Amino acid sequence: MKRSGTRIRTVMAEIQSRIASRTYTPGARIPSVRAMAQAMQVSVSTVLEAYERLMAEGVLSSRPGSGFYVAGPVAPLALTELGPKLDRVVDPLWISRQSLETSLDALKPGCGWLPPSWMYEAGVRKALRMVARSDASKLTEYASPLGYPPLRQFLSRRLAGIGVEAPPEQIMLTESGTHAIDLICRFLLEPGDTVMVDDPCYFNFHALLKAHRVNVVGVPYTPTGPDIDAFGAALLAHAPRLYITNSGIHNPTGATLSPVTAHRLLKLADTSNLVIVEDDIFSDFEHTPAPRLSAFDGLSRVIQIGSFSKTISASIRCGYIAARGEWIEGLVDLKIATTFGGGRLAADIIHHAITDSGYRKHMESVRLRLAEQMDKTVARLQAIGIKPWIIPQAGLYAWCQLPLGKDAATLARACLNEGVVLAPGNAFSQSMTAGDFLRFNVAQSGDVRVYDVLKRALGA
Amino acid sequence: MKRSGTRIRTVMAEIQSRIASRTYTPGARIPSVRAMAQAMQVSVSTVLEAYERLMAEGVLSSRPGSGFYVAGPVAPLALTELGPKLDRVVDPLWISRQSLETSLDALKPGCGWLPPSWMYEAGVRKALRMVARSDASKLTEYASPLGYPPLRQFLSRRLAGIGVEAPPEQIMLTESGTHAIDLICRFLLEPGDTVMVDDPCYFNFHALLKAHRVNVVGVPYTPTGPDIDAFGAALLAHAPRLYITNSGIHNPTGATLSPVTAHRLLKLADTSNLVIVEDDIFSDFEHTPAPRLSAFDGLSRVIQIGSFSKTISASIRCGYIAARGEWIEGLVDLKIATTFGGGRLAADIIHHAITDSGYRKHMESVRLRLAEQMDKTVARLQAIGIKPWIIPQAGLYAWCQLPLGKDAATLARACLNEGVVLAPGNAFSQSMTAGDFLRFNVAQSGDVRVYDVLKRALGA
Repeated sequence: MKRSGTRIRTVMAEIQSRIASRTYTPGARIPSVRAMAQAMQVSVSTVLEAYERLMAEGVLSSRPGSGFYVAGPVAPLALTELGPKLDRVVDPLWISRQSLETSLDALKPGCGWLPPSWMYEAGVRKALRMVARSDASKLTEYASPLGYPPLRQFLSRRLAGIGVEAPPEQIMLTESGTHAIDLICRFLLEPGDTVMVDDPCYFNFHALLKAHRVNVVGVPYTPTGPDIDAFGAALLAHAPRLYITNSGIHNPTGATLSPVTAHRLLKLADTSNLVIVEDDIFSDFEHTPAPRLSAFDGLSRVIQIGSFSKTISASIRCGYIAARGEWIEGLVDLKIATTFGGGRLAADIIHHAITDSGYRKHMESVRLRLAEQMDKTVARLQAIGIKPWIIPQAGLYAWCQLPLGKDAATLARACLNEGVVLAPGNAFSQSMTAGDFLRFNVAQSGDVRVYDVLKRALGA
Repeated sequence: MKRSGTRIRTVMAEIQSRIASRTYTPGARIPSVRAMAQAMQVSVSTVLEAYERLMAEGVLSSRPGSGFYVAGPVAPLALTELGPKLDRVVDPLWISRQSLETSLDALKPGCGWLPPSWMYEAGVRKALRMVARSDASKLTEYASPLGYPPLRQFLSRRLAGIGVEAPPEQIMLTESGTHAIDLICRFLLEPGDTVMVDDPCYFNFHALLKAHRVNVVGVPYTPTGPDIDAFGAALLAHAPRLYITNSGIHNPTGATLSPVTAHRLLKLADTSNLVIVEDDIFSDFEHTPAPRLSAFDGLSRVIQIGSFSKTISASIRCGYIAARGEWIEGLVDLKIATTFGGGRLAADIIHHAITDSGYRKHMESVRLRLAEQMDKTVARLQAIGIKPWIIPQAGLYAWCQLPLGKDAATLARACLNEGVVLAPGNAFSQSMTAGDFLRFNVAQSGDVRVYDVLKRALGA
């Protein structure tokens, strides 16, 4: 009997060690009693006893007629279940899906991008006709590992124009701006690392960082950039690995980083091992370029990313990463392993469109229209008691505060029922302290029905 | 003195707990002595003493004039450093980069894809001209979360044709076939999980799985599919979460899964909690469709993925995932978080090309040419002593064995110097037991210089 007891404990220990090493994962079916008995050269009754003791301990579970399982459910990565349950209306993923799904006739002042009629459609059509006549390899072959050289050369020149020295070998094309940040996170972060973001910040940063299972720390954003005292304190308290921000025009506030804040921020970053991702996606909306962290830093600890989805086309996926050489090497490996070749055709179309003389004129007119719409939107919102936090120098967004006691999520829910999609403040706020803010996209707020619906919902 | 000693130990404990919780990560600079003293309300000399003791213990390091750091380097994810160092010639990443980088005039029998002149170039040109005339939203707006509906409807019908029932709501478009597998891995796997692959298998599976930091177990592949006894034994021994395979035509062997193997494999999968990814990327090369795991299984535990890069264009990035409904829901969230909208234009171009009547004729001619090239390549290889493992029923690849005592990596290195890019067997082999094999792409092996170079290198 004693020897049989030893054998039972041996089988139990073996199973527990396989669970500990994740050879058997939660929810997995473990080998049948018979198979295990054969594999471990013990009797069927020994294994059965071991399994039953492990069931009594809650380590295993069984389903009638279907065998033994490691206790605990099979758990695929459910983004919606990581972190606290959110009201759907302020759930970043829900807002993204809503914006992407909503039918064309809905009014979308909460949407993050320009209406199709504001995009560089004529340039895209022309580029498509040009590309249709190019040689077979452009049309059918994979891109080179770094991506289509002429577009990288163009980006290198454009970056030089705002003071960022980045030779084409230090620029890698990606499938989008989001893809660029995702690759950088995969490259630099481990689950459990800490990442600093602006509070408020672009809401998809929250969804993206959730997928990386990192801790997120928010730093309050001021009209001239992040609050520098809070930034320094957060560096000390949390030693974050990465800080992700929009320079140029900030999403959602429309604020612009000042040179003195940029300088102080980089001095602080130098005291720790902080890497900064500067998302430069709104640069073509600026009237005069704001300071760039990547220009001050010289692409040492700052990585700049961008895309063309906000001005040329969101339908053509193309983004870029400009970073120090040895990081680009590692990022290329990671890109090939996870998406293989990049989109050569997309890069070629973007290159045609962006180097076309019409693009410059198109963006001049977009900037003028945006400035007009900014004035109109802010005036109309003020008329119904919704106040802008600042008057942005440029860009699409006005970050606005509701009258005292009004809740943006409640308002968003009411307006959605009337076909108006809003972007409530807490979707952008790590600390959930923007419950009385909304982000308005002025290019999507031209229809007066928006204000009728808002006014009615505010009155209710 | 005693109280000071207590304070020193408190500071030391605090720092070690921050390192343990990854608040301070390896290589990170920790707060200055002065800052820490202020934060912990102790004297500067207490902190200095604590830091110096931790340095003596090897927990911290210092750089003159630059402060204190957590010992250990900053470690971004270096794919080339995960796992054993490989000879570059059999390093999957190196082969991918080599194929993507090599100039047009190199001969590439080791390349994984068709030459540009074999692709559906005419169809792509026609599609581009059509798309250039479509409405603005197609040209400039994000795709819907699942992706361009007409292409999903087409895929649903095509899948029905090979016995896979997948309504369009169970199909999500991705940026590529590799992107599809990457999303599934992110969704289902944790670092440390075990994944089963065929030995040999498509080499980029190795690079991709490295990026996910999972354990990889290889199962020997036979001319009718994986070795079923080894498959069952591996299930028992390793309880893998996922099995990734090509059904239809297998890469690199050109073998075809038999119905009996498919059936046995799925029966074994049912005894554990195994999920199967079936990479169906070569389906349009088949003369008659081989059995599909997804058809036998009904998309319960099998996920099918595919793309259009092998027949229409690799320059236009588009792939798909067909899976059970609740998994598609989670995958959509993950896709939005990590790449935001999909490529609507790319999906539109692919849809035009693949539904064009010319595509069917084009593929008929490609299949005929491949069959001819298969015969020629095999005959030419046999003439210099290189033997095919099997004669594949269809597809691009011939998996061939070198004469006794010859090493494929050595041969690949010699041939590369003469402008011929080969694909040595061990790049495909988890167990590194294919050192005397090479994969030949028959569509890239038409030039007789290939055999001259091979013969010379074999003789040396």
